[in-house]
Amino acid sequence: MAILVVGSVAFDAIETPSGRRERCLGGAATHFSLAASYFTDVRVIGVVGEDFGPDEERIFERRNIDTRGIEHVPGKSFFWSGSYMKNLNEAQTLNTELNVFQSFSPKIPAEYEESEYLFLANIDPVLQEEVRHKMPRVKMVCGDTMNYWIKDHAENLARVLKGLDALLINDTEAKMLAKENNLVQAARKVLEMGPKALVVKHGEYGATAFFCERSFPGEASTVTVPFRVPAMPLAEVVDPTGAGDSFAGGFFGYVASQPTLTPAVFRRAMFYGSVMGSFAVERFGTERLQQLEPNEIEERFALFRQLSHLD
Amino acid sequence: MAILVVGSVAFDAIETPSGRRERCLGGAATHFSLAASYFTDVRVIGVVGEDFGPDEERIFERRNIDTRGIEHVPGKSFFWSGSYMKNLNEAQTLNTELNVFQSFSPKIPAEYEESEYLFLANIDPVLQEEVRHKMPRVKMVCGDTMNYWIKDHAENLARVLKGLDALLINDTEAKMLAKENNLVQAARKVLEMGPKALVVKHGEYGATAFFCERSFPGEASTVTVPFRVPAMPLAEVVDPTGAGDSFAGGFFGYVASQPTLTPAVFRRAMFYGSVMGSFAVERFGTERLQQLEPNEIEERFALFRQLSHLD
Repeated sequence: MAILVVGSVAFDAIETPSGRRERCLGGAATHFSLAASYFTDVRVIGVVGEDFGPDEERIFERRNIDTRGIEHVPGKSFFWSGSYMKNLNEAQTLNTELNVFQSFSPKIPAEYEESEYLFLANIDPVLQEEVRHKMPRVKMVCGDTMNYWIKDHAENLARVLKGLDALLINDTEAKMLAKENNLVQAARKVLEMGPKALVVKHGEYGATAFFCERSFPGEASTVTVPFRVPAMPLAEVVDPTGAGDSFAGGFFGYVASQPTLTPAVFRRAMFYGSVMGSFAVERFGTERLQQLEPNEIEERFALFRQLSHLD
Repeated sequence: MAILVVGSVAFDAIETPSGRRERCLGGAATHFSLAASYFTDVRVIGVVGEDFGPDEERIFERRNIDTRGIEHVPGKSFFWSGSYMKNLNEAQTLNTELNVFQSFSPKIPAEYEESEYLFLANIDPVLQEEVRHKMPRVKMVCGDTMNYWIKDHAENLARVLKGLDALLINDTEAKMLAKENNLVQAARKVLEMGPKALVVKHGEYGATAFFCERSFPGEASTVTVPFRVPAMPLAEVVDPTGAGDSFAGGFFGYVASQPTLTPAVFRRAMFYGSVMGSFAVERFGTERLQQLEPNEIEERFALFRQLSHLD
């Protein structure tokens, strides 16, 4: 079933110990939709400028991603420039130009209205809430956010959290959101804010899902133990940009490809999230996610099982 | 079969956000042997001063740990004082008094000579090497070390590494030892230094084992994929002191309890390591490891499986 994702479609300039790229396609919605496209139909809502041309369009097209919701307006696309020279685990932002993104007002094409799954990538919570309200019949809503919204837009963010089935953020964001240093206690507090599940991404150490009693429709509270998926130890991390969004894409893409959300589906989805994250960082930008073969995904999934399972 | 462990038996003064203890039994050999004692026979070689009395002796005795190799000499026992107030993941050392440990010269009682397994806890590599040489017939040798020996005693350490079946250290130590920032590449370099396997402990994120072709006796090189075990997310980490030694004790204790070391045994051993580490941090010092019930260990093991396995 189809996922609708709303978020940034951007150009990135990136430098890492492995090299640099002056201009590559980026943005949370881009990474997410490419990763999810290997599992299910994906529809994107975003905004781009005149610098977004047929080359970029083709990247989505080749993965059968529906881009009718990407609005084209005069001006330049969102531009982000970052460096990982000092620390591969944390980007140092060199420059952010919102450009056409500054006045982004998400519009949902009629063809998108019946989408069963909704992913609210990291954008202004006011816009996340707006899109959420226009899609009252979706089966499941997941979302992301970041320190900026947590610190300075807490009230708006609180409204979004109430409506989420799963929130996917990193350790620092989870602890900041809960104002709590212990991860388990932070997770409990975040779950009290609304999300039925919380997926905390640990970068090179994987991710942990925490559940509340309402996590699975029609299930009694059988899932209280968290679930932890490793990340794949890699001999070279070429570019960590978009790893978290790729995790979200793999995770939610797999969920949307399954008839119902059970604890077992959630667990497998966590593995597919980590699988897609592990591919994402192997090349710059979305290079690796543009050209995966389904058997590569299944082979990596099997590798993750070997990496983590007793037998 | 029996494990002989050589290392520090000490008193610790510890402060953490959960409270403080002015004087509790500590030392790598203590944490290791208590953890391992739930799986196999343990024999300790160490040195203590006059402050080590019947109360301390009883802690070992209750777990049937053989302390005939703990030498009693005039003076005070090794004393360490540390704080975790700023960071639960890294101790800030406030004070170290070597005391009787300064002139420690390990002596192996005749009753210990037939021990099949040897653990060289974190002490001067010259002493580690000495003990290793006095035990030429052991079936398997594991060891630990720390930044001080890596930086300033590299040549002595290199000799120890050549004779190890498994080295258990943390991320920082592995990267420092290999002079390499990427964990996978660091692991490859460390394995080239001698150990057949390298277990890198990630604190709250668990541990990863890396293998070289000689990891398992009589096996072709089937194990090249690393193995990653999670740590248990805990709502309160009371005192992280000794978590790594408890991991090593659970790991090696389980290995020694099994007839042969197979890849499957190694994996289960990693889980038991993480299980014992998760207990260790629940109370101050060795409080929790003194009074575990076997069924608690098996229940926690089952919880680790739920935490990490797809089905």
